[in-house]
Amino acid sequence: MFRLPLLAVLAAGASLIAADATLALRGYSADDTHAEQSWEEKFRALPSPANMREYMRLLSARPHHVGSPYDEHNAQWILARFREWGLDAHIETFQVLFPTPKSRLVELVEPRHFTAKLREPAVPVDPTSDQTAEQLPTYNAYSIDGDVTAPLVYVNFGVPEDYEQLDRLGVSVKGAIVIARYGNSWRGIKPKVAAEHGAVACIIYSDPQQDGYRPGVVFPEGAWRPPDGVQRGSVMDMPTYPGDPLTPGIGATANAKRLKVAEATTLTKIPVLPISYSDAQPLLEALQGPLAPDGWSGGLPITYHVGPGPAKVHLALKFNWDLKPVNDVIAIIPGGEYKDEWIVRGNHHDAWVNGAEDPISGQMVLLEEARALGELRKQGWTPKRTIVYAAWDGEEEGLLGSTEWAEAHADDLMRHAAVYINSDGNGRGYLQMAGSHTLEDFVNQVARQVEDPETKLSAWKRLQQRRISRADKTEDRNELRTRADLRMGALGSGSDYTAFIDHLGIASLDLAYFGEDGGGIYHSIYDDFYWYTHFSDTDFVYGRALAQTVGTAVMRLADADVLPFQFTDFADTIHKSVDEVKRLWKEKHDEIEERNRELDEGLFAAIRDPHKTLIPPPHESIPAYLNFAPLETASDMLTRSAQAYEKALADAKNPPAAQLNAQLIRSERVLTDDAGLPRRPWFRHQIYAPGYYTGYEVKTLPGVREAIEEKHWDEADKEIQIVARVLRNEAALLDDMTGLLKAR
Amino acid sequence: MFRLPLLAVLAAGASLIAADATLALRGYSADDTHAEQSWEEKFRALPSPANMREYMRLLSARPHHVGSPYDEHNAQWILARFREWGLDAHIETFQVLFPTPKSRLVELVEPRHFTAKLREPAVPVDPTSDQTAEQLPTYNAYSIDGDVTAPLVYVNFGVPEDYEQLDRLGVSVKGAIVIARYGNSWRGIKPKVAAEHGAVACIIYSDPQQDGYRPGVVFPEGAWRPPDGVQRGSVMDMPTYPGDPLTPGIGATANAKRLKVAEATTLTKIPVLPISYSDAQPLLEALQGPLAPDGWSGGLPITYHVGPGPAKVHLALKFNWDLKPVNDVIAIIPGGEYKDEWIVRGNHHDAWVNGAEDPISGQMVLLEEARALGELRKQGWTPKRTIVYAAWDGEEEGLLGSTEWAEAHADDLMRHAAVYINSDGNGRGYLQMAGSHTLEDFVNQVARQVEDPETKLSAWKRLQQRRISRADKTEDRNELRTRADLRMGALGSGSDYTAFIDHLGIASLDLAYFGEDGGGIYHSIYDDFYWYTHFSDTDFVYGRALAQTVGTAVMRLADADVLPFQFTDFADTIHKSVDEVKRLWKEKHDEIEERNRELDEGLFAAIRDPHKTLIPPPHESIPAYLNFAPLETASDMLTRSAQAYEKALADAKNPPAAQLNAQLIRSERVLTDDAGLPRRPWFRHQIYAPGYYTGYEVKTLPGVREAIEEKHWDEADKEIQIVARVLRNEAALLDDMTGLLKAR
Repeated sequence: MFRLPLLAVLAAGASLIAADATLALRGYSADDTHAEQSWEEKFRALPSPANMREYMRLLSARPHHVGSPYDEHNAQWILARFREWGLDAHIETFQVLFPTPKSRLVELVEPRHFTAKLREPAVPVDPTSDQTAEQLPTYNAYSIDGDVTAPLVYVNFGVPEDYEQLDRLGVSVKGAIVIARYGNSWRGIKPKVAAEHGAVACIIYSDPQQDGYRPGVVFPEGAWRPPDGVQRGSVMDMPTYPGDPLTPGIGATANAKRLKVAEATTLTKIPVLPISYSDAQPLLEALQGPLAPDGWSGGLPITYHVGPGPAKVHLALKFNWDLKPVNDVIAIIPGGEYKDEWIVRGNHHDAWVNGAEDPISGQMVLLEEARALGELRKQGWTPKRTIVYAAWDGEEEGLLGSTEWAEAHADDLMRHAAVYINSDGNGRGYLQMAGSHTLEDFVNQVARQVEDPETKLSAWKRLQQRRISRADKTEDRNELRTRADLRMGALGSGSDYTAFIDHLGIASLDLAYFGEDGGGIYHSIYDDFYWYTHFSDTDFVYGRALAQTVGTAVMRLADADVLPFQFTDFADTIHKSVDEVKRLWKEKHDEIEERNRELDEGLFAAIRDPHKTLIPPPHESIPAYLNFAPLETASDMLTRSAQAYEKALADAKNPPAAQLNAQLIRSERVLTDDAGLPRRPWFRHQIYAPGYYTGYEVKTLPGVREAIEEKHWDEADKEIQIVARVLRNEAALLDDMTGLLKAR
Repeated sequence: MFRLPLLAVLAAGASLIAADATLALRGYSADDTHAEQSWEEKFRALPSPANMREYMRLLSARPHHVGSPYDEHNAQWILARFREWGLDAHIETFQVLFPTPKSRLVELVEPRHFTAKLREPAVPVDPTSDQTAEQLPTYNAYSIDGDVTAPLVYVNFGVPEDYEQLDRLGVSVKGAIVIARYGNSWRGIKPKVAAEHGAVACIIYSDPQQDGYRPGVVFPEGAWRPPDGVQRGSVMDMPTYPGDPLTPGIGATANAKRLKVAEATTLTKIPVLPISYSDAQPLLEALQGPLAPDGWSGGLPITYHVGPGPAKVHLALKFNWDLKPVNDVIAIIPGGEYKDEWIVRGNHHDAWVNGAEDPISGQMVLLEEARALGELRKQGWTPKRTIVYAAWDGEEEGLLGSTEWAEAHADDLMRHAAVYINSDGNGRGYLQMAGSHTLEDFVNQVARQVEDPETKLSAWKRLQQRRISRADKTEDRNELRTRADLRMGALGSGSDYTAFIDHLGIASLDLAYFGEDGGGIYHSIYDDFYWYTHFSDTDFVYGRALAQTVGTAVMRLADADVLPFQFTDFADTIHKSVDEVKRLWKEKHDEIEERNRELDEGLFAAIRDPHKTLIPPPHESIPAYLNFAPLETASDMLTRSAQAYEKALADAKNPPAAQLNAQLIRSERVLTDDAGLPRRPWFRHQIYAPGYYTGYEVKTLPGVREAIEEKHWDEADKEIQIVARVLRNEAALLDDMTGLLKAR
């Protein structure tokens, strides 16, 4: 008999690490549960902090960006380890466009002269910080070439709302160079929005308020960004499509049909360069014009102004526009009973420089999982499903390795891949879980069986208590105390799960521990072994916890008789999202109605200060009412179908596992639409996508939500229909499965 | 027939400056309304920006603190002007304790040596900034003498909640010197709370985030506090009693019975000194220990730590403990019909240094009102009531001049004073109105008839629009658009109204324009004519607007047949306050219940980061339920009585004015209790008081509210009874008046 897992009802009680052998795992019979728990316990005993420390030391010993000698070295080293551990491994290479700097110049030319250093100095106590010859210079990849001289304008974080404020101040960036601070959006949004508003170049700097001396002591005495530290990073327009700009939708194999560089739509429209706060201060100090509005000032000891001018800046950038190899290292553990169903696990191995935290703190965990699984196989364990371990290359530049591999193997993946599990770094703290909500219940179960190294509570219990401690509202605390599963975030973008979930519709997870240590070494030369072993998970026990968490998840997914997808949590999340988009529409409506009224009543004339420019906002037409009914009907339908499937599964004496699994694998595919999202067809998932104007941050029900945010009311109505359709399809798939179960 | 004013119903419509002659003013017959409006219009044409500029230039030409030659000069000059304008004026002198520095020293002695400058440099473009010989040094008046060396601890704003956070961090200030930043409380709270926690000295500094380079460009290029600017100010324990520390409750006349200095309870318990941010930075930079918690960092370019140590500080202070004269200048315009009813109008004339903004921008307005009223008298106007104009001395040190005068004339004032109207500076912007809510409707009427200089709307309309623009909630905007009167703030402390309202129970108002310009020259040598004429109401048109506003109010109060108190707004405010204290109790209850639950569930152990100290909060007993019924019953009773009085007054053909006025004058007195507030008997008002731990900020229903805040549940129940009693007495007074009206 198949039983529903009952662990959930114990959630509010004491910590429960050890499995209760009397309870069946979801997707397992009672007998299989026992065997699985036993293998999993063996697994969790294997990951070794000392091993992971050594992997990190080796892999971060030299700079290892795409195309560098040490990147190639690391790929070969990882390949050798996989093979040493008995895995069937190979390297798969793609040829991708990867620009690197020929020349970079930022200088203030008026009202006085200052040339930006654009250089991160070596630090004596940090032994890898002086590998100057191999370090990539500080730059933003996929910026176009350019040479411009123009007045400077400070645009805060450079997101669309910031430009609305500039409009109110009467400040245009047309023909200007904008300077934006890092934060509040993925970096690639900043030059994109700047270009949309007519700017001719974009400078991005790390303000000390975000990750410098304001949150903590700077490196090397502390973990945070020193004055000359610079955040490198890609500015490719990934919300349009990630991966090689020259081969959208197909694998960038040696012979692939490529666009010309000039045809690629994901390069920036204007040149862009990142700088440090020591380089930014003279530029910002030279600005006059309106005072920075509320919330725009950072942590520099100056009065922030918006400009434009008198500061005038000369920015000149030239890049090598070369193809470079990316080397994905792929290892296979063949499955037994369901060998054509794949569980894929990935973390990238390339870095901007030495990259101890990003990505080696995640890569070392993946490697240690692979070693431990190899060990279990020697002891006789064979997973029911095929497990694929992937060490991706070229993530930093634009998810290159994972995207090209996913595109190259799209047909196979869509046929075979059940779940993709990602990580991309790790630290001390709390379990961070995000992914497809059909796996929310599953991840909660796993988290209940992993021990937090610091408190010896379960990772689940510690996370629950953390969330209670940070909840503002009584109802949120009530939910945290009574809902069986802790809510899981949805996936936006910013790491290698993107092609799997958003393009191919493969149920995905992204897991890590973080939250107790911060730091300001992201994408700088200081993200290295010295930093990680002084300021993060210094004894690698959270590395072990992540290996235990992900490894348990991989095994439990691979060994299950019936894939442990669960749909009532998913339906509950959909209801929440539907409520959110309804509320969003209402807020937009009320906001526009109120503002129009204020315009009619003369409010903006009444509050005007003649010493300051404050332009009234525009009169807008009141949003059309939207027909949310199809979405509400479909999400209710989904809830009923999910409940019926749960009941049928619980009642089933002998479920038709193979038939169910075939449908379950499709359950995420059904949530996609071949036409993709409006204006970005590569993104096919209708429930999750990175925001077009946020980059990293997810938008759930993206077609509907972004249409409302951008005030495209007709489009919103159309998108409601599309999302309702995929939800009805999901409900129908559940009903099919319920039928299969009841037929027994 | 007496009519209720109907202006209110037009509020939401277009601006209405000119009086509508068809509508009677509250307290006036239709005929008298016409005459009054005509005199008021004549009055409002008189105030001259050029005159006020000249008064400011003269009165701020040299430093004029208590006891200084130029303070005496200004008193004599004001006396001469009052007399020149035909007013019956005299100087009334009191002898008050006023300590001035003999020696001041702040030095960092570990881990390195640094001596604070404690000096504000002259600025070449600012002609009065170099009057070094006459400037008071930077210090806090009524600090005790002291010489201590101790570890330093940063305590944020130094309010009680900050010490709760320090407890959580495991940091004690016992035996330490604390450094607190200005802001978030009246300054005197900081050494008081520090001493309560065992600190041995207190340093207060001006962080650039509050009034330095963060909000704007610093002086002399801009209006804000330069690096060496220091905020002087009193730290006398005014929430216990203001005025001369040696003569509590009585006038500090030459022969008054005085306490010994050692007996005065309002001196600080520990030595305290204010410093600049340039002097503070080396001290703060030398601190280690825990990172400053969220919200504790200011705007200096350092990582803020709490300490204690390794910074060790030596602070040594010695003062002259002398008596000094304070010279109040009092001018009288005798009334006609109701000459024993007084309208008192005051603004202080003393300053910390040159004091152009504080107080001369208010004093110049008072003078121009007096000149204009003198002019009207020449044209034949005689007020029904006696008007008293008072230019107070010694406000800065502790409301000395106004408090001693009010105490010396307490019996007369309680018998005769109908209303006290205060100001204490002025700038560009929006009408700021605060006071007794029995005058809320009255002030709203006045504000509808004053023209805003910048928009030509009424001051009322502009304020309404400003408030709508800043309202977050739909219901707040609805109220702003539909309630006849804009809500008026209640009076806390910080200016000369304190003795009138809080000690004597005289209905009071405090009026000013502010809000468009900021600045960081408060209580520094840079608050002078140069600053004011470059960065504030540079053409003195808001000076004119305030003279028009206050002068209109003075005339309309002085000329009314029936004093224009109105009680439905007051009752409405009481209901709001009762709801607030009920909600406050509920919040305390829920907060303690939740925290106890978290302690029981082990939350603090679960979220503990072993790298940081975070001590669980204490388990507290759940608050007893309070009996709010007497308060609710009394406030309902008040509402009914207020409505009945309104109706009876509106219906009255020939109201018994003299009898009503006698009762109306008592209507604020009735709100006091001779026993005063718990632990501070000088404060007798039961509806308004400055917070014992806020200093400036008002606490309405203070006995009840502070008992709940400080978790004295038995006291809260007792205070509810006392407040309910004064409200019932107020209702009974209203019922008496209604009876008088109906008897006609």
